[in-house]
Amino acid sequence: MNYFSEELDIEAGLKLSRLRIVLVGTSHPGNIGAAARAMKVMGLDQLHLVNPVRFPAMEATARAVGASDLLDGAEVHSELEQSIEGCSLVYGTTARNRQINWPILSPRDAALEIAQTETPVAIVFGREQAGLSNSELDLCQRSICIPTQSQFKSLNLSQAVQIMAYELRMAHLSSESQKQSSIGQEKDPLATASETQLLRTHLLAVMALVGYYDPSYPKLLERRIGRYLNSTNLRHSEVQIVRGFLAAIEQRLGSSAL
Amino acid sequence: MNYFSEELDIEAGLKLSRLRIVLVGTSHPGNIGAAARAMKVMGLDQLHLVNPVRFPAMEATARAVGASDLLDGAEVHSELEQSIEGCSLVYGTTARNRQINWPILSPRDAALEIAQTETPVAIVFGREQAGLSNSELDLCQRSICIPTQSQFKSLNLSQAVQIMAYELRMAHLSSESQKQSSIGQEKDPLATASETQLLRTHLLAVMALVGYYDPSYPKLLERRIGRYLNSTNLRHSEVQIVRGFLAAIEQRLGSSAL
Repeated sequence: MNYFSEELDIEAGLKLSRLRIVLVGTSHPGNIGAAARAMKVMGLDQLHLVNPVRFPAMEATARAVGASDLLDGAEVHSELEQSIEGCSLVYGTTARNRQINWPILSPRDAALEIAQTETPVAIVFGREQAGLSNSELDLCQRSICIPTQSQFKSLNLSQAVQIMAYELRMAHLSSESQKQSSIGQEKDPLATASETQLLRTHLLAVMALVGYYDPSYPKLLERRIGRYLNSTNLRHSEVQIVRGFLAAIEQRLGSSAL
Repeated sequence: MNYFSEELDIEAGLKLSRLRIVLVGTSHPGNIGAAARAMKVMGLDQLHLVNPVRFPAMEATARAVGASDLLDGAEVHSELEQSIEGCSLVYGTTARNRQINWPILSPRDAALEIAQTETPVAIVFGREQAGLSNSELDLCQRSICIPTQSQFKSLNLSQAVQIMAYELRMAHLSSESQKQSSIGQEKDPLATASETQLLRTHLLAVMALVGYYDPSYPKLLERRIGRYLNSTNLRHSEVQIVRGFLAAIEQRLGSSAL
């Protein structure tokens, strides 16, 4: 699984530095420190603060642990507009039952969308108690809502940042590993319908050859295999691998199934 | 999107109360409180503590905010064995570079696997600095590793609990909405991560047995097969079909590949 790779070139490929976390009107400096740590652990490093109640502050530094460099580098603004300057996409986080008329995304869907882009993006988090105001949300093109249980929605600010930073990392790792594995995939087109059909015939013949059949439901097996092969986007090379394997089985058994 | 629904019957359908969060040897009571809040906001409510350094404690209650009921109901044990009693599956969380010889899952894969089960499950988190000991990990059947950046892995304990609780909620909401939208498919769930892993191992072993390898690129074949199996949503029944086929090949050849 690619996300356990420690290779620095993958880390570099993530380009998470174009992603900005903006905290608006944070009351507790401890939350700013915890948010910085939550960001850094997932590879984010651009922290923007809009009118923090108290910053810099000892509690922020204490909770940041090894992420105090993000606090040192944090940009402090008096207006939300300044903090999102230069961003091509701005996401506002919001509680679920707010009256709004634009699409609300889950953190996962938002992160997948963001991973498809390459320009600066801001994700804006509101005050601990009151969230973002309507006029602040008007500056965002999209809303993100983190699912919580309906009876207790009291998600801590730094925990919200942690979930979003985690989803951003997951989405970028997956997009990066797709990019790496699809190098040269242009030379490996999807299998044609007739290739898939020949594979199905060959597979069933070898299954019969080795005596693998559910004798009571032969048709069920055929149907399942047909359905599976059609539902997956087999590539030309993958069909070749499976057919090569089937041919090797036949050779070992000294008889041809077809 | 179903996870924004506030319907209580969906909430009830999640059955998250069978999921136990076990914190081992926690040093800072504040982290216990923050973990309780992280759990409750995602609908988890079974908190077990093994040898907490200090509990109950004011800092725990302060950080729990509205989740102090989880602290009141928390079971405190002197041995990890007691805390996981009655659990059919136990997951241990671990840093990525530990030497272990069983599968390491991402939080997402683990949550998807757990959402397929209906029995009590425990997820065990270690000490803030030292994690879980090897003998504690020996009591777990699976390991979970949260992906972090390679240069700064200092994930706060309650943040780790938050990510895991969030993934559990997402997986259960998605599984619940699948159940509601497709009656009959419950009999054929998606293959678990470990089923897919076992299939991969079995397949490669039989390929070696029949002498099917691209001798110049053995690793390439392994990688291609791993990628293919992970990219398709294999169902439990499909894994069984392929493994039955592989077993039939072995039987015909009169030798076992594994």
